Amino acid sequence: MPALLLIALFASLLGLAYAAFNFFSVKKLDEGTDQMREIASAIRVGANAFIRYEYKVLFAVVLVVAAVLALLVSWQTACCFLIGAVMSSAAGWIGMRIATYANVRVANAARLTVRIGSTLKVAFRGGSVMGLCVGGCALLGLVLVYLIFGLGMGLLQPESLVSHKNWLGIDVIPFTMCLSGYALGCSVIAMFNRIGGGIYTKAADMGADLVGKTEARIPEDDPRNPATIADNVGDNVGDVAGLGSDLLESYVGAISAASILAVHLSFTAHASGAGMTDTLLNRLMLYPVLFSAAGLIACVIGILSLLSRKTLENPHKALNLATYLSAGLTTLGGLAVTLLLFGGIDLSGAGFQAGVLSPWIGALIGIAAGIFIGAIAEFYTSAEFRPTRDLAEASLEGTALTITQGLALGMKSCMAPCLILGVGIIVAYYVSGLYGVAMAAVGMLSFVAATVSVDTYGPISDNAGGIAEMSKLDGKVREITDTLDSVGNTTAAIGKGFAIGSGALAALALMVSYLFSYNDPSTPLLLNLIDPITLAGAIIGGALPFLFSGMLIQAVSKAARKMVDEVRRQFRLFPGILDGTQKPDYKTCIEISSKGALGEMKLPAFLAILVPVAAGFLLGPEFVAGILIGSTISSIMLAILSGNAGGAWDNGKKHIESGAIEGHGKGSDAHAAAVVGDTVGDPLKDTVGPCLDIFIKIMSTVALVAVAVFDKYNLLDCILALLQ
Amino acid sequence: MPALLLIALFASLLGLAYAAFNFFSVKKLDEGTDQMREIASAIRVGANAFIRYEYKVLFAVVLVVAAVLALLVSWQTACCFLIGAVMSSAAGWIGMRIATYANVRVANAARLTVRIGSTLKVAFRGGSVMGLCVGGCALLGLVLVYLIFGLGMGLLQPESLVSHKNWLGIDVIPFTMCLSGYALGCSVIAMFNRIGGGIYTKAADMGADLVGKTEARIPEDDPRNPATIADNVGDNVGDVAGLGSDLLESYVGAISAASILAVHLSFTAHASGAGMTDTLLNRLMLYPVLFSAAGLIACVIGILSLLSRKTLENPHKALNLATYLSAGLTTLGGLAVTLLLFGGIDLSGAGFQAGVLSPWIGALIGIAAGIFIGAIAEFYTSAEFRPTRDLAEASLEGTALTITQGLALGMKSCMAPCLILGVGIIVAYYVSGLYGVAMAAVGMLSFVAATVSVDTYGPISDNAGGIAEMSKLDGKVREITDTLDSVGNTTAAIGKGFAIGSGALAALALMVSYLFSYNDPSTPLLLNLIDPITLAGAIIGGALPFLFSGMLIQAVSKAARKMVDEVRRQFRLFPGILDGTQKPDYKTCIEISSKGALGEMKLPAFLAILVPVAAGFLLGPEFVAGILIGSTISSIMLAILSGNAGGAWDNGKKHIESGAIEGHGKGSDAHAAAVVGDTVGDPLKDTVGPCLDIFIKIMSTVALVAVAVFDKYNLLDCILALLQ
Repeated sequence: MPALLLIALFASLLGLAYAAFNFFSVKKLDEGTDQMREIASAIRVGANAFIRYEYKVLFAVVLVVAAVLALLVSWQTACCFLIGAVMSSAAGWIGMRIATYANVRVANAARLTVRIGSTLKVAFRGGSVMGLCVGGCALLGLVLVYLIFGLGMGLLQPESLVSHKNWLGIDVIPFTMCLSGYALGCSVIAMFNRIGGGIYTKAADMGADLVGKTEARIPEDDPRNPATIADNVGDNVGDVAGLGSDLLESYVGAISAASILAVHLSFTAHASGAGMTDTLLNRLMLYPVLFSAAGLIACVIGILSLLSRKTLENPHKALNLATYLSAGLTTLGGLAVTLLLFGGIDLSGAGFQAGVLSPWIGALIGIAAGIFIGAIAEFYTSAEFRPTRDLAEASLEGTALTITQGLALGMKSCMAPCLILGVGIIVAYYVSGLYGVAMAAVGMLSFVAATVSVDTYGPISDNAGGIAEMSKLDGKVREITDTLDSVGNTTAAIGKGFAIGSGALAALALMVSYLFSYNDPSTPLLLNLIDPITLAGAIIGGALPFLFSGMLIQAVSKAARKMVDEVRRQFRLFPGILDGTQKPDYKTCIEISSKGALGEMKLPAFLAILVPVAAGFLLGPEFVAGILIGSTISSIMLAILSGNAGGAWDNGKKHIESGAIEGHGKGSDAHAAAVVGDTVGDPLKDTVGPCLDIFIKIMSTVALVAVAVFDKYNLLDCILALLQ
Repeated sequence: MPALLLIALFASLLGLAYAAFNFFSVKKLDEGTDQMREIASAIRVGANAFIRYEYKVLFAVVLVVAAVLALLVSWQTACCFLIGAVMSSAAGWIGMRIATYANVRVANAARLTVRIGSTLKVAFRGGSVMGLCVGGCALLGLVLVYLIFGLGMGLLQPESLVSHKNWLGIDVIPFTMCLSGYALGCSVIAMFNRIGGGIYTKAADMGADLVGKTEARIPEDDPRNPATIADNVGDNVGDVAGLGSDLLESYVGAISAASILAVHLSFTAHASGAGMTDTLLNRLMLYPVLFSAAGLIACVIGILSLLSRKTLENPHKALNLATYLSAGLTTLGGLAVTLLLFGGIDLSGAGFQAGVLSPWIGALIGIAAGIFIGAIAEFYTSAEFRPTRDLAEASLEGTALTITQGLALGMKSCMAPCLILGVGIIVAYYVSGLYGVAMAAVGMLSFVAATVSVDTYGPISDNAGGIAEMSKLDGKVREITDTLDSVGNTTAAIGKGFAIGSGALAALALMVSYLFSYNDPSTPLLLNLIDPITLAGAIIGGALPFLFSGMLIQAVSKAARKMVDEVRRQFRLFPGILDGTQKPDYKTCIEISSKGALGEMKLPAFLAILVPVAAGFLLGPEFVAGILIGSTISSIMLAILSGNAGGAWDNGKKHIESGAIEGHGKGSDAHAAAVVGDTVGDPLKDTVGPCLDIFIKIMSTVALVAVAVFDKYNLLDCILALLQ
């Protein structure tokens, strides 16, 4: 086993080393003119300040949770939780840092070379730092947990992989609790990063648009708009740091869920009499880690292939190629790992229907499903296809029909991804059981380093465009960054489809582990929705994502309104701003966004963390199981609706701006209607949707850790005991 | 037993007799001036024409379904299906007919008496015809099914209440299939009435508003607007006929589900060894019918109490009083029925925890839950409370924030009703088992005659206002009808909360019967969502209501756009219309709405009917069970969101129009933003929300009828059999 873990350690270090190389390669590039330098520095200072504040809040939360875990579960769980928190915050922090270095250098590359290929390379090199850090940090943390708390403390020994009573008399399986703790650490950071970043970015964006575009009628990123720097800071804290922690969390959640599931499957195998050898159990636990390691190595090659190419004229094609190459190599590397781990050992008890290749087929189904779901998101949100074009045409009939049609588009777009998820789950299950479903989640996320790199390149290019505009660079520079940005919009939509698809599968895998935690292994695993407690949980759980989303939207619009007031105040008090003779006060706007986001993020974040715990202590594990399934189903739908409606409104507006509808270009009534659609879509696609991805996973992870306690102590059991 | 059924027969005939009395009392009132007569006649002719077309489509659908039922299940089931279809279409037709007589007479009463009390009485008397017909027709049909197919054909004999093979070798329980068939008949009519009416009314309304209010800036119901008569026709076919069939279907669904459940509970009781006497089984089957009969008699008294009062100055209070009186008398009457049926007989095997009163407590929980859910809807949608006021204030910040805030309000409003449903389900279950949950649904709907009367009075008053405006009556007349209409808006919101709450419980009760239909009675009832087939079903089922809603919204906006084109065409070709020198062509607009609704209603209606059947033949009963629970959860949320967001936008706009926000009254930018919000909300609250109520019930009812066939024949079983 140690030898096998060294492969994963090697992969994570390789990924991090390549990330470091790309970091310094980007950083040593020139920043360009003094004005560019100044603007970039303002963005960087703003982003750093926000992250510093946010991490202070997080530090307190993490310490409290760690103390609770140490007290109620075990100190090892608390330590693993801390490792998770450190890894997740490190990845987010490094990724955001390089993004704030890369943005200005991308603008400068465009200025100096006036070529799309070389500019794309700088942007993608910057993005790859985030992607590689996500893969590298997540895997490094996992390897540490396995090495220190698994091998080192003997927790991977057969006798440690069964239930033990801790000092409070609570049943815990030592090592699976360590894995859950690690996943929880990543989840908590991701939750705050996503919500905080999501509120920040959209408050600034909406605030800038509502006054700038709609009232003062000045273009996007115009330096006369006081909120424009805050808007650019938002891209970095929301779309970069938030997205990175989000996918890191999905990645870790999927891997841990599959490993934990292996332990529970061994109980079931023993209870059913089929039995499972210790070797097989260890291999099943290691397989998701090694599969992901193979994926990370594949991504390094995929990213390298793009960065080492001489000519690069079609950015969309080049990025797709890098992603598909990474995915293809992952399947090959995964095949090697599969044969290495499962070749020639006794597979009985694992429930594999297709022999040694079964778990690999499960992962493959996940990869295929991910690619399909991404393609569907592209179909609904790209102006190259009918739905978005129809939406753009609805703008000719006014604002109301633009909104109505966008909502209808988002609603209708839920079915196709759900069909794919449904079919994927059924096939993965019939090939390799519940383990196959968990491996589908791992598979979908295994080349996360590539997808995050592509996703991060988008906001970096967007920022570069902003800097170009604010420093009044040549129009050609802006043309290049705009092309890159618009490609980034499509890749972002695909990435969102991917994030919710993988999030849903990861949440389901975590839920299965959760159910195993309190179900008797000798009986069939149950999540019986006709049990009234579970059914009530499912209905209430179904309402939770709606409550959470409503709170997020209100948080964004509250912060955005403050921004609107401030921008209006500046325009009123300093009329010189609009004619360019006075400089606006960017700093106050940045502070408003920061304060707004920090103030508003707490309630929704605590809701996500505390609901499963409170519900568990009130009505026990079945109630929480109901909540988990209800909220997972609702979240999948709401996240798809939000992402696709928002994406379509955005690209519909761009379609009109491009002049594609004759007689209704920029400045027309149709354009005004489309701008309203885009503004409505903003908090949906960039705050609600992404936060829901985490919402379902953090609830499952919290439940998985807390179930040991509330399975033993809850109000319902007390009442029922008293009644008898 | 026959004697007990006579009570129900008496109640239904009493209700229908009182409905007939009110019908003719209203009809013999004077219609007013020639102009009023002419306009009313145009509305009546338009409404009748639409219903005639719609019923032609329905006739074909009903014949086909009846033939299929006769062939695959039994001819008795087909007959009961036809009885259901006749009762439901009769109730919708009579209610709509009286509404088109009452509207002009309400306007005339206001004109002659200039008093709110006497005007209210005419409107409520008209509305009560619909309410009493819903209760009376539904109950009459049930009694016929019980008398003819139960007692008459001996299907209520113990030997008929177990599974028999029909000529195709399919297992059916003869009498429960009759009940399911009856419920299905009501469902199919309700589905088409709701969808057709919902598309018609909102296409006309949106079309009228989009050009009239937004472009030509003429007030609502202005006779210069060519779409204005179509808009008034829409109120009758959508808000009257559609609503009536909808609640009739919920009512029948809840009663049948409880009766069918009783049969399955007897199997479980026998399998568990507890046993159940034939007397108890018969009483459990009759109880929901008699409880509803008590409710109908209570409603007759409640309605009478309002209509016989001398002075009536506060319409809101008077209507609430009538409803609460009906609900209160229902609980008393229900208590008498409970003691009559269950007093002194052997209750073992029924799973009652609180003795003879157990099922009554279950029903009481339903009544209480219904009232709470209605109050929550009022809280979120009335301008007397914070949420709607905040929404109105958001309009000051422009259109985008109006939409965003409305969505957030709708999303947040999902939690409270779901908490009540959850708690209600748990308590009802612990008091009287699954039968208690089914009785909660019956309880919530038992005073449906009163709630539908109150709900129907709203559109009648709305129409009266339209007629007053178009016939240029005195401003005071319009003031009276406006007051009645605004009360109607609040009662409509409460009614919507009620409809979705009761619909959800009825759907769950039907689902329980569905699960019993294929589960082995000797094992615990299961809806195991961790089974991959069921889980896939739940995810796909969760997406279905979103697909369905998206289709409905697009159907409405497609029809509305055609209306917009026509109104614009008339304004362009006949410029005299706007200055009042030319008469617009109302008829073409009515035809456009009719054709649009008839054309667009088919696809969503067939989706609802065919999906459970197709899914069942593909992947068997567990898959359909997953679809049912997934779509029920999603539908509850979407329906609450739609109803409350739409209601709040509507009343937020009215709040602004009332001048409550200083400096931002009618004609201001804030008002324009609020009008967009209202237009976006229209198809949500009046098409999507109401149609979803039926969507979940019709899917459960179809599944309940079809499961006998697809449990035996489905593709999955074939494949699994081949693989072995």
